[in-house]
Amino acid sequence: MTSKRSAPIDMSAEEFRILGHRLIDQIAEFLIALPGKPVTPSEDPTHLKALVGTDNSLPKRGTDPGKLLERSAELIFGHSLFNGHPRFWGYITASPTPIGMLGDLLAAAANPNVGSWKLGPVATEIESQTIRWIAELIGYPTDCGGVLVSGGNMANFVGFLAARRAKADWNIRESGVSADGAKKLVVYTSAETHTWVQKAADLFGLGTASVRWISTDEQKRMDTNALQKQIDADLAAGMLPIMVIGTAGTVSTGAVDPLYDLARICRKYNLWFHVDGAYGGFAARVPGVPSDLAGLELADSVAVDPHKWLYAPLEVGCALVRNPVYMTDAFSYHPPYYHFDSSVTNFVDYGMQNSRGFRALKVWLALQQVGLDGYIQMIGEDIRLAELLYQCVGEQSELERFTQGLSITTFRFVPAELQSRTGQSETEQYLNKLNEEVMLALERTGEAFVSHAIINGAFVLRVCIVNFRTSEKDIRTFPALICRIGSTVDRELRQSSLNSR
Amino acid sequence: MTSKRSAPIDMSAEEFRILGHRLIDQIAEFLIALPGKPVTPSEDPTHLKALVGTDNSLPKRGTDPGKLLERSAELIFGHSLFNGHPRFWGYITASPTPIGMLGDLLAAAANPNVGSWKLGPVATEIESQTIRWIAELIGYPTDCGGVLVSGGNMANFVGFLAARRAKADWNIRESGVSADGAKKLVVYTSAETHTWVQKAADLFGLGTASVRWISTDEQKRMDTNALQKQIDADLAAGMLPIMVIGTAGTVSTGAVDPLYDLARICRKYNLWFHVDGAYGGFAARVPGVPSDLAGLELADSVAVDPHKWLYAPLEVGCALVRNPVYMTDAFSYHPPYYHFDSSVTNFVDYGMQNSRGFRALKVWLALQQVGLDGYIQMIGEDIRLAELLYQCVGEQSELERFTQGLSITTFRFVPAELQSRTGQSETEQYLNKLNEEVMLALERTGEAFVSHAIINGAFVLRVCIVNFRTSEKDIRTFPALICRIGSTVDRELRQSSLNSR
Repeated sequence: MTSKRSAPIDMSAEEFRILGHRLIDQIAEFLIALPGKPVTPSEDPTHLKALVGTDNSLPKRGTDPGKLLERSAELIFGHSLFNGHPRFWGYITASPTPIGMLGDLLAAAANPNVGSWKLGPVATEIESQTIRWIAELIGYPTDCGGVLVSGGNMANFVGFLAARRAKADWNIRESGVSADGAKKLVVYTSAETHTWVQKAADLFGLGTASVRWISTDEQKRMDTNALQKQIDADLAAGMLPIMVIGTAGTVSTGAVDPLYDLARICRKYNLWFHVDGAYGGFAARVPGVPSDLAGLELADSVAVDPHKWLYAPLEVGCALVRNPVYMTDAFSYHPPYYHFDSSVTNFVDYGMQNSRGFRALKVWLALQQVGLDGYIQMIGEDIRLAELLYQCVGEQSELERFTQGLSITTFRFVPAELQSRTGQSETEQYLNKLNEEVMLALERTGEAFVSHAIINGAFVLRVCIVNFRTSEKDIRTFPALICRIGSTVDRELRQSSLNSR
Repeated sequence: MTSKRSAPIDMSAEEFRILGHRLIDQIAEFLIALPGKPVTPSEDPTHLKALVGTDNSLPKRGTDPGKLLERSAELIFGHSLFNGHPRFWGYITASPTPIGMLGDLLAAAANPNVGSWKLGPVATEIESQTIRWIAELIGYPTDCGGVLVSGGNMANFVGFLAARRAKADWNIRESGVSADGAKKLVVYTSAETHTWVQKAADLFGLGTASVRWISTDEQKRMDTNALQKQIDADLAAGMLPIMVIGTAGTVSTGAVDPLYDLARICRKYNLWFHVDGAYGGFAARVPGVPSDLAGLELADSVAVDPHKWLYAPLEVGCALVRNPVYMTDAFSYHPPYYHFDSSVTNFVDYGMQNSRGFRALKVWLALQQVGLDGYIQMIGEDIRLAELLYQCVGEQSELERFTQGLSITTFRFVPAELQSRTGQSETEQYLNKLNEEVMLALERTGEAFVSHAIINGAFVLRVCIVNFRTSEKDIRTFPALICRIGSTVDRELRQSSLNSR
């Protein structure tokens, strides 16, 4: 009779210790080397596919886990885009916290299933506390309901679904969107909002045609007059408006919608008020940010993304709903094969997932490591660096500034001889091409990494600083770098254009 | 000009190394101690809430990360339900692989955003390879589309949404479920299916009333005659049947639907065939399993859960879709602020998430550590242990066997003096109460952990072995343990019943 099973996937504690120490050392070496590495090696897909292998079968036999880990760490640290690099400013992905890396290790070792209290007792309490602390950090009522999810899409989906359930005037969970006699549901958001709104309207059965894309003002903030006109028109047409989605930090430029006005309009029309704060929400209490940001305190639901401005390693988003009942109303089922105490929190009743990992841990640890003050300080510094960049860009004659909002600054390279001709169609076309090439050339050098935005038709470079490793020096030296690359690319483009005549 | 930013959340590489080594050591100590610990300390919610703290605010100032990690590991290893314990047999949550723990650490350290190739180049290739290997492991075409998700619900949702898009005969993404003139969509599944079907029908706008719960035979397999009658009736009533959901391993008893017959019926009626293999899918190629399991090869989409029978730490589920086009058809958007090469895989186009973590890594490492043969062996052993338990339970006169399917065995404790009276209403009521109390008493002792099922009205103990640490000795000694606890609980219940008269 075997008292100890010998499974090939198992590892003795001693082997785990040795392999674990070695991996920790490899990561430490990576952290030391990182600032001196390119932000990305910018490799060809074919090359990488060949490295990993595209046509090989699952190996029939196993391999030594020590060698496997060693090689895998080399592969990953050699061929990634490093959002932990001081000069990574692309998209809105953060430098990951070291304590969060260790938090994910500890979470995987304990492996609680945080779907129900019983399966993850202490993990459930830690997630609940994390949610309260997140609410406190952004100035939202701490007695709200909440759940941690995979990211911004899912966090926003939770708010969307709570709104759908709360505002449909029939039993939508049972009868669906197309119940007999049901009105058409419509939702309102600005044209600057993230693609999740489209996706939500599509996935949750309303259809993308149900989204009213409200126009924005010069600062890319939702036009509240246009919003009210559209609501009135929809009501007159027999539609059922259910929610307004305000954005606290748009993806392109960091614009903040007039959240207090939106809250007032929602009250007037009895609509659900959801705030997408995936990017900007955590800046709500940072001194100097647009005063409208604090208006998320009035929302019925808010989405924030700890894997953005809390710098948590992927994945962790967070949905908050003012009245927790709207969450269980939208998500709870009680099948016979569960047997859970209803006096405790079972997160399965608060969202779309059933089994759930312990993603709270990395956030909970980081919040304690630096405290409220630490986060306010770091987020504030990211914003100040983006403002500094805006200022430095202004000092370079060949750079044209576009926008500055939260920690996003946008601008483009305009060669001296074209500066009198911007706005002309041919020049703009060339500048769009030029700046796209500048972005790609920068990426190839690996000296920094930015993404882009399209602002009123112009292709602009977009620097988004959600990075506690970015220094003042990184920022001050960046405009000259762009000018240097810009001149080279401009010359090459003109040359190739001449050659092709 | 600051060349290095000093952020409170950062850590020197040397500090990371010291803290990392210490945490690895704590985990190694935990792994050594685990088999001798109770499966759960089975504590009171009030006690745990007090330990974590329920009324405290987010600390204003930070704290030493070393002490914080040390205390946190103690808290978590002292107060969890340990699914890594050799005698954890509750629900379908797995003992986590040691290499998976390290994989999650490495993933968090590199922190690629696997939403797009550009953001996670090597990670995308690794995820693609992992998906091919998973397909191979279960006997599904390796040129299928696929995506890793948070778990079984999400994996099944992907199949559901692909089906909805493929079978609705109008532009459902734009016009929604309630488009003018649209027929009512209906879906088919057995009454034994997991709650995700309800949730999907609800969330994705069809409403739970659109689910046709087809009856099952004695072995809890879907009745294909009942299925065809229901499809015919719905067609006659002007509904639009879109999909049949077969289950490859039901949650309660591990039953496998007649997948080949379901595939045939789907072809006949032009319906999408989805297989929920979240639990049983990975057993498809294990010798001796029901031959119907291999029928998942014919499905249009399959959901499997590496955090179940590949023993990966939470979270990782996997959706496979035979024709990848149906995934991008259902999920892809191309907003202007992305700028991705369409010749490479961008997983954002294959599912509901936008930002995505590197959950592939822990699966990819484990698949290589043991190879195809290793997994076939371990899953086969889990099944043989469940069969052995069924046999051992049969040798105990006070235990009544109910079902044995895949690695799930169900039975109940029936005191000798009640064995002639089972089936009588009063006896059954008492037995239900008794077995529920036996389950809870077992949980309090911490000697093993099981969950329950309701089978034809009877509350039965359910042992589900998705655990590479469970040994033959654990299984052989278990029936006697239940008899001992059963006798004690039976005596106590009778005593308290006498006292209350």
